Amino acid sequence: MTDRVLQQPDRLADTTGALLAAVRNNGPLVQCITNIVVANFTANTLLALRAAPAMVDITGEAGLFAGVADGVLINLGTPSAEQREAMREAAAGANQAGTPWVLDPVAIGALPVRTDLAVDLIRFRPTAVRGNASEILALAGAGSGGRGVDATDSTATAATAAITFAREHDNVIAVSGPEDLITDGTVTVRVANGDALLTRMTGGGCALGSVIAAVLAVRGQISTLDATASAHAIYGIAAERGARGAAGPGSFAVRFLDALASLSPEEAVAAARVRTEHASTQEPNGACP
Amino acid sequence: MTDRVLQQPDRLADTTGALLAAVRNNGPLVQCITNIVVANFTANTLLALRAAPAMVDITGEAGLFAGVADGVLINLGTPSAEQREAMREAAAGANQAGTPWVLDPVAIGALPVRTDLAVDLIRFRPTAVRGNASEILALAGAGSGGRGVDATDSTATAATAAITFAREHDNVIAVSGPEDLITDGTVTVRVANGDALLTRMTGGGCALGSVIAAVLAVRGQISTLDATASAHAIYGIAAERGARGAAGPGSFAVRFLDALASLSPEEAVAAARVRTEHASTQEPNGACP
Amino acid sequence: MTDRVLQQPDRLADTTGALLAAVRNNGPLVQCITNIVVANFTANTLLALRAAPAMVDITGEAGLFAGVADGVLINLGTPSAEQREAMREAAAGANQAGTPWVLDPVAIGALPVRTDLAVDLIRFRPTAVRGNASEILALAGAGSGGRGVDATDSTATAATAAITFAREHDNVIAVSGPEDLITDGTVTVRVANGDALLTRMTGGGCALGSVIAAVLAVRGQISTLDATASAHAIYGIAAERGARGAAGPGSFAVRFLDALASLSPEEAVAAARVRTEHASTQEPNGACP
Repeated sequence: MTDRVLQQPDRLADTTGALLAAVRNNGPLVQCITNIVVANFTANTLLALRAAPAMVDITGEAGLFAGVADGVLINLGTPSAEQREAMREAAAGANQAGTPWVLDPVAIGALPVRTDLAVDLIRFRPTAVRGNASEILALAGAGSGGRGVDATDSTATAATAAITFAREHDNVIAVSGPEDLITDGTVTVRVANGDALLTRMTGGGCALGSVIAAVLAVRGQISTLDATASAHAIYGIAAERGARGAAGPGSFAVRFLDALASLSPEEAVAAARVRTEHASTQEPNGACP
Repeated sequence: MTDRVLQQPDRLADTTGALLAAVRNNGPLVQCITNIVVANFTANTLLALRAAPAMVDITGEAGLFAGVADGVLINLGTPSAEQREAMREAAAGANQAGTPWVLDPVAIGALPVRTDLAVDLIRFRPTAVRGNASEILALAGAGSGGRGVDATDSTATAATAAITFAREHDNVIAVSGPEDLITDGTVTVRVANGDALLTRMTGGGCALGSVIAAVLAVRGQISTLDATASAHAIYGIAAERGARGAAGPGSFAVRFLDALASLSPEEAVAAARVRTEHASTQEPNGACP
Repeated sequence: MTDRVLQQPDRLADTTGALLAAVRNNGPLVQCITNIVVANFTANTLLALRAAPAMVDITGEAGLFAGVADGVLINLGTPSAEQREAMREAAAGANQAGTPWVLDPVAIGALPVRTDLAVDLIRFRPTAVRGNASEILALAGAGSGGRGVDATDSTATAATAAITFAREHDNVIAVSGPEDLITDGTVTVRVANGDALLTRMTGGGCALGSVIAAVLAVRGQISTLDATASAHAIYGIAAERGARGAAGPGSFAVRFLDALASLSPEEAVAAARVRTEHASTQEPNGACP
C-alpha cells in the first residue's frame, strides 16, 4: 500500500517523523475489533491521523477483511461471544495474509473469559501487544491481573516479563505507563511523551493500540520495534499538545484529536522523547530497572 | 404526530426551513438501529435537532417499536447477529405501519454478510437509502464496494445507478459526496452544503441518516425527495457553521452539535444551497454528469 | 475499600461534600453494564469523578466481577441477549457479595423484553433504582411507559408510586426530573440542582446512574437515601457549572466533564440544593404533591 518502501533513519526521532508522514500520505485502512466504550474515540483518533478506520467485527466478515486491511487492532474490552469469534477469524486472517496486527489484552488476569481468549489469540502471532503493566504480567503468566482496566503493577515490575515474552514469541511488547516501555526481547525503547490526562479519559490506552496498527501498516523497512515506539511517541506528543490549555478531561479529549490532526512530521521529530537501550541477552532479569 | 400537515412551499430552500421548524415543534421519535461507533453521536445529533432518539435494537422490541416511532433508521455499520434480526423486525414493522424508514448500507459491496442483509432489507421498501457512491453502486449491483467505509467511486459515477434504482424501487436514493445527489428516479436534487471536516470525524455520514429519518417523520404533504434533500441541507449548514473557528476534527464535532441545536429555520432558508434538475425519463444513463 | 468509615454529618449538604471527597480519595471500582449509546460518556463521567470504571458486561465474567467491584450499575438501554444474561449474573453476584448496585430501567413500560428483565432483576434487590417518572411508574406497575427514553409523566405523578415501591422493596427510588425526588419510602429528599441541557445530550440520565453507584460504594455509615441524593446533587452541580458559557449541547457535554473533574467538596457543600421531607407513613398517597 505504501508507494515507496520506508527506509530506517539513523535516529529514532527521525523515524517517528517519517512514519507520521507515511501514515498521512498513505491513509492505511485499519480494521478495529474493539469495545463499545471506545469505538467512537478510536475511530476518531485514526481519522485525525488520516488513517481509515473500519470497525469490521462480525463473523463472516472479520477474517476476510483482515486480509484486505493494512493493519488490524484486536481489543478485548467488551468481548461479546460474537466478537470473540470474529477476533479469532481476524487474527487468523491477518496471520495468514501477513497483515500486521496488534493485540490489546484489556483487563486480562482477573477476568477468565478474556484471559483464555488472549492466550488463544497469541497462537496467531500478534505483531505487537500493548497493555498496562498488570495486563502484560498476566499475559506472561506472571501476574494476577489488575483492577479492572487499571494497572496495579509498575512498568518496572513488568519489564522482565515483557522482555522474556517478546523474545519467546518473536514479537514486540509495549507496556504503557508514565514512561512507556517497548521491547522486542533484545532491544528496549523508552518513550517519555504523554500526559497524565490520558488516564483521566476513557480510551487513552485503547486508541493507542489503533495508532500502533496504523503505523505498523506503513513501516516498510523500519523495524516493528521502532515503529511501535514511534506510534507511542506520536500519540504522546499529541497528548502533550492537547493538554495545553485543557480545562479538564472533557476538553482534553477534544484538543487531543485536534492536536493529533495538526501535528506535522517535523514537530514530531522535534518533540519525540525516545531512547533505546539494549537488553542483556544473557540475563533478562537484570536488564531493566 | 404533526399537529398540522405541512404543505409544499414553492422553493426548496423554503421547504428546508419549514421542515426544520416542523422537527423543532414536533420532536419526532426516531428509532435507530445503528452501530457501536456512532450510536452516541447519532443520538446527540437527533437531540440537537430536538428530535427524540430511541436506540431500540433488540429482537422482540425492534419490530413493535417501529410501528410506534415516527421514523426509523437502520444502519449496517456493525451488524451483530442479533442486530441483523432486529433490523429485519424493524424494517418489516415500519413497512407494515407506514413509518418512514431510512437504510444506510454502510460498507456493503466488499463485505458479504451486510451485503446480503441490505438486499434482504430492500424487500421492506425503505423510504430512502443514504450512502456514499461505492455503497450505492454496490446496492445497485453495479459496483464492487468501497474500501471499508470510504467511497472509492465518485458521485457522478453513482448517479445513473442511483436514478435507476430509485425508479425501479419507487423510493429516494441519496449519494453523499462533496456535492450530495438525491433522486427519486425522475427528479434529482443537488445539495452543496457541507464541509470536508465531516469526513474527518466518524459518524459524519451515519448521523445524517438519522436526520433524514427525523425530517421524513414530519414531512406531511412534502415529497420524500424534497424532505430528504432538505435533511441534507440542514445537516450541511450545521457542518458549515460548526467548521467556523474549529481547530480540527475534535472541536468540529462539538461545534457541529452546537450549531445544529441553534440553527433557526430562517437561517436554514438563507443558507440552503439546493438545486433541482429533471432526470431524463427516457435515458437515465445520460441524465446526470 | 474506604480507608475510614464515613459518619453521617448533620446537614445533607455536608454529606454531599463528604461523599465527593470520599470518592476522590478512594477511587471506587464501578462495574457498568450499560448501553452502546452512553458507554463512553458514562466511563468518562466516572473518570472525571476519579472513580474507576470497568465495563465488564459478558457472561462468565459479569457475576464474579460484581463480587470484586465496589459498586455496580445495570442500565437497560440496549440490552442484547448476552447482556441480559450478564445483567442477571451481575445482579446475583452483587446481591450475594453485598456490593451496592443501581438499576436504571431505561424505557421500560412500552418495551416488553426490558420490562420483563427489570421485573426479574428486582429479585436481586437493587440498592437503588434511578429512572424518569414514566420508568418508575412502569416499574411499580402503575404506568404504561414513556415515549422511548422520554418521560411522559411528571415527577409529582410518580411520587406515590416511588414511595410505595421503595417501602415494599426496602430500597431507594430516585425519580429524575426538573427537581429530582429520592425516597426510601419513609423520607423523601428533593434535589434542585441540574440544568436543562442535561436533557439535550444523550446519557444525561444514564451517567447519573454510574455516579450513584460510585457514591454508594463509599457511603460508609451514611444512609443509602442520603448517598443517592448526594450523588444527584454532585451531578447536578457539575451540570450547572458545565452549562455556564456553553454554546449548546455539544460544548455542554465537554464542559460538564471538566466541571465534574474540578468540583471540590467545599464547592459541592456550598452549591447543593437539597431538602429533606418526611413522607407520611400512614398515607403515602398524600405525602407528596
